[in-house]
Amino acid sequence: MDISPLQRVRYAYQPKLPAILRESITKVAPQKGEATSAQSDADRIKALFPNTYGLPRVSFLSGVNTDISKKRNVGVILSGGQAPGGHNVISGIFDALKAANRENTLYGFKGGPSGILEDSYRIIDEEYLAAFRNTGGFDIIGSGRTKLETEEQFEVCAQVCKNHEIDALVIIGGDDSNTNAAVLAEYFLAKGHGIQVIGCPKTIDGDLKNESIEISFGFDTATKTYSELIGNIERDANSAKKYWHFIKLMGRSASHIALECALETQPNVCLISEEVEAKEQSLVSIVDYIAKIVAERAEDGNNFGVALIPEGLIEFIPEIKVLISQINNLLAKEEKAFNKIADGSERIAFVAERLSKETAKVFTILPEEIQKQLLMDRDPHGNVQVSRIETDKLLAQMVEEKLSGMKKEGTYTGKFSSMTHFFGYEGRCAFPTNFDADYCYSLGYNAFLLIGSGLSGYLSSVTNLAAPAEEWKAGGIPITMMMNMEVRHGEDKPVIKKALVELDGKPFQYFAEHRDKWARETCYTYPGAVQYFGPAEVCDLTTVTLALEQTR
Amino acid sequence: MDISPLQRVRYAYQPKLPAILRESITKVAPQKGEATSAQSDADRIKALFPNTYGLPRVSFLSGVNTDISKKRNVGVILSGGQAPGGHNVISGIFDALKAANRENTLYGFKGGPSGILEDSYRIIDEEYLAAFRNTGGFDIIGSGRTKLETEEQFEVCAQVCKNHEIDALVIIGGDDSNTNAAVLAEYFLAKGHGIQVIGCPKTIDGDLKNESIEISFGFDTATKTYSELIGNIERDANSAKKYWHFIKLMGRSASHIALECALETQPNVCLISEEVEAKEQSLVSIVDYIAKIVAERAEDGNNFGVALIPEGLIEFIPEIKVLISQINNLLAKEEKAFNKIADGSERIAFVAERLSKETAKVFTILPEEIQKQLLMDRDPHGNVQVSRIETDKLLAQMVEEKLSGMKKEGTYTGKFSSMTHFFGYEGRCAFPTNFDADYCYSLGYNAFLLIGSGLSGYLSSVTNLAAPAEEWKAGGIPITMMMNMEVRHGEDKPVIKKALVELDGKPFQYFAEHRDKWARETCYTYPGAVQYFGPAEVCDLTTVTLALEQTR
Repeated sequence: MDISPLQRVRYAYQPKLPAILRESITKVAPQKGEATSAQSDADRIKALFPNTYGLPRVSFLSGVNTDISKKRNVGVILSGGQAPGGHNVISGIFDALKAANRENTLYGFKGGPSGILEDSYRIIDEEYLAAFRNTGGFDIIGSGRTKLETEEQFEVCAQVCKNHEIDALVIIGGDDSNTNAAVLAEYFLAKGHGIQVIGCPKTIDGDLKNESIEISFGFDTATKTYSELIGNIERDANSAKKYWHFIKLMGRSASHIALECALETQPNVCLISEEVEAKEQSLVSIVDYIAKIVAERAEDGNNFGVALIPEGLIEFIPEIKVLISQINNLLAKEEKAFNKIADGSERIAFVAERLSKETAKVFTILPEEIQKQLLMDRDPHGNVQVSRIETDKLLAQMVEEKLSGMKKEGTYTGKFSSMTHFFGYEGRCAFPTNFDADYCYSLGYNAFLLIGSGLSGYLSSVTNLAAPAEEWKAGGIPITMMMNMEVRHGEDKPVIKKALVELDGKPFQYFAEHRDKWARETCYTYPGAVQYFGPAEVCDLTTVTLALEQTR
Repeated sequence: MDISPLQRVRYAYQPKLPAILRESITKVAPQKGEATSAQSDADRIKALFPNTYGLPRVSFLSGVNTDISKKRNVGVILSGGQAPGGHNVISGIFDALKAANRENTLYGFKGGPSGILEDSYRIIDEEYLAAFRNTGGFDIIGSGRTKLETEEQFEVCAQVCKNHEIDALVIIGGDDSNTNAAVLAEYFLAKGHGIQVIGCPKTIDGDLKNESIEISFGFDTATKTYSELIGNIERDANSAKKYWHFIKLMGRSASHIALECALETQPNVCLISEEVEAKEQSLVSIVDYIAKIVAERAEDGNNFGVALIPEGLIEFIPEIKVLISQINNLLAKEEKAFNKIADGSERIAFVAERLSKETAKVFTILPEEIQKQLLMDRDPHGNVQVSRIETDKLLAQMVEEKLSGMKKEGTYTGKFSSMTHFFGYEGRCAFPTNFDADYCYSLGYNAFLLIGSGLSGYLSSVTNLAAPAEEWKAGGIPITMMMNMEVRHGEDKPVIKKALVELDGKPFQYFAEHRDKWARETCYTYPGAVQYFGPAEVCDLTTVTLALEQTR
């Protein structure tokens, strides 16, 4: 088999553009809106970005833009983790670029930002692109995690662009990559290099979001894929009636993915890290909360359930946060002595002895497996790799212990048997949903229009996304307007503000209003597999999160 | 949200029947074929089933069957693990039963075979059924693992049926449940109870298969759901280019699921338990095999890959089989002494000291986590719960160790980082594919026709399944013809022969011919999510396994 039947037919899908982008490309003109500011720390951002701070928002409207037909070469870079739809961003850029001038060339830098530093690229032509349209993955040119941060790197970028006569770069990435795109844009302007830089908002985590970026691409497909699986497991739980499933969901620090999946599937439990932090919930109180629900359902004869756990949870639990930080510091300081110890239990003892008394107590109540995971290989910054901690197993085990205590006390009489799951890699490279296919294609097409309007330091912005594609709005926003100052590695840095789940926002509020009912009763909904060909209400709707956010 | 958009539209799906079952129900008549025998041990099976052995195959053809309109009540039971399509079998029975006579009543016994023993049932009417048509799960009446095996149970069944004037039972289950259905049918005939019993072939594992049963229902949906996820992970692996993913797949002892998923997704490695057993491959040789592929791919700069591992694997590895058997015996014998030991490491030492010398060596090379899993709670028969052994982690860890040895020797220079997954519960309750929706509905409809033809001890059989539904053939086969004698719990029992992967069959042969290429190169195919509404080549095709089997 060469390619799958679905892949074959998806090639033929024509993504839907906003009405304005369906016009002839010379008949779309940028309209500049009011000048912008920053998310906060406006003065400091302004000082750091003298050329790109305060630029106006831009909207595309009918008009005349003959300048767009000028010959241009564009470079594109995929940065960071995969998200469904990346290939469609590139398709959109390509189609707009060729619609503007058949002589234009699209350079795809290979393997992420390192591709431009190493001048490793491939020219994307129609034939090559055809095999990637409407498919998942970033394999068209690959991605990578190298960061473009230093002036030395920026100069290499400028040189490479000049060698290929590249007029503009499109950087497809998350908050960090777009922060770096803004710095690069500012640098190119300051140095008069004449190379434009446009960003595109990518991340399945959903944490690159604000009033102008309604959703980052890939979030829709990833959450629908996870929700398919959660729904299937819920239906299994409700049929077999004998397991509690603890499902950990990818999503770094923010809990957007877990929240959206909860809204889609109505599980018995969904933890939201931002709430845990705000309420300073301890690990023990979280375990008690879940055990209470297990016991209540058992009273109704329901010895089964489904609990969703965001990947980043443990970093938001106050005492575990302290524990992780103490371990990180300790292992950095005592690296040599620690590495000499081969035996797992001795390593645990070594660490336990050196933690503060309070924190040692927290460490000691954790199951041995989790203790070991906390002492595993550090990431390049010397931090524990939180995504490798099996929070699902941790909670399942602690809930089980709690329940056996309750059984002895006579406050619980049910049966508890658990299964654990982690969903992440299953959704990052799925075929994009129609929504992500359309949105990404529009983002790419729109990115080229921003280039053709002579702009730099802008993020491609397509909005009004809860409406049908035809009614979407297209334009751009200065990246600086999403920035604030934050401490990173001990230094004040201008960065795009990460969007965490807002506890007073409508999606969380809706969840909070319903969760007690969902906990006790069985209100599961089964979204099923992502559909591409059926009725619009099945195939084209985006997330419940966005629908709730856009309810006025 | 009440139900998902997909669920709403799936209710309206009208499953496709074979052409013959589209006729008016009184115009379909059974044609009896030649008398049948047993799989083997014919004389002994004949002696055990004097009333149901040697019955003819039956095919449905155009004809006259006025007797089918006679008023009848039917009971239905879901037995064992969930499989997508169970609700459609019930829909098919219901629609045929009502087409035959509006006065007929369908009793659904609740929670599996125990439902009939406890006379716990619900009457299935159109309104109740409507909410379950074309959906996954067994929640319509629930399922269970109680076995109907004793005369005492059979008498209760007869009594319950007589109380409700139930004329026939349909038992939807796997090989064991259908074996028991045959015994029950024989018993009812021998005792003159006048209650018919018809079986339906259910199991995602795919091991209930023979010349007359081309596929068990649920296998298509489950393997397509797993293949969706495997394909997504392959695409992620091929985009990120930094992880080896070890994916364990449900499927009990047979490797049909792993094989079908491999044919769908073309991974770098897929182990087939039946081959491991036939070639008497040791754990070490399996690890060497995978490590060799990892090293070869690393030579090409590809430090990533995907390996599929069937759940039942470790029981097929000769020395592990011996180990498991020794541990099972040891823990049965020394249960008390063992249970007094609380500490995990001491438990391991306790067992290691008491194994044979050779086997202790095997036990000792296993990672500690796996040792612990082998000593975990036994199943009700005192056996280790093989599905709880993390074979994925075992292999990933042992391959990593092997590679670090090879690195020291200079025969490997790549980077190895692994991720592990287990897919099982994700697929057992998915919305059935169009194939499973059609096939199950046809099986149920056909089951009622068998009842209406006065037959008992038959399995509902729908064949020619690689062709469009219209061309499918409908009929029944005596369950006894699938039987042989096997030793179960130390006793000779008549049982339906489990179908393992045949190493000389076309599906395995195709895999074996291609696996070296798939191992070294990157030939991934990405099936994507199951589709219900698109072109027939995307929505209606069944498994690659069946397509290959039916290639003449």
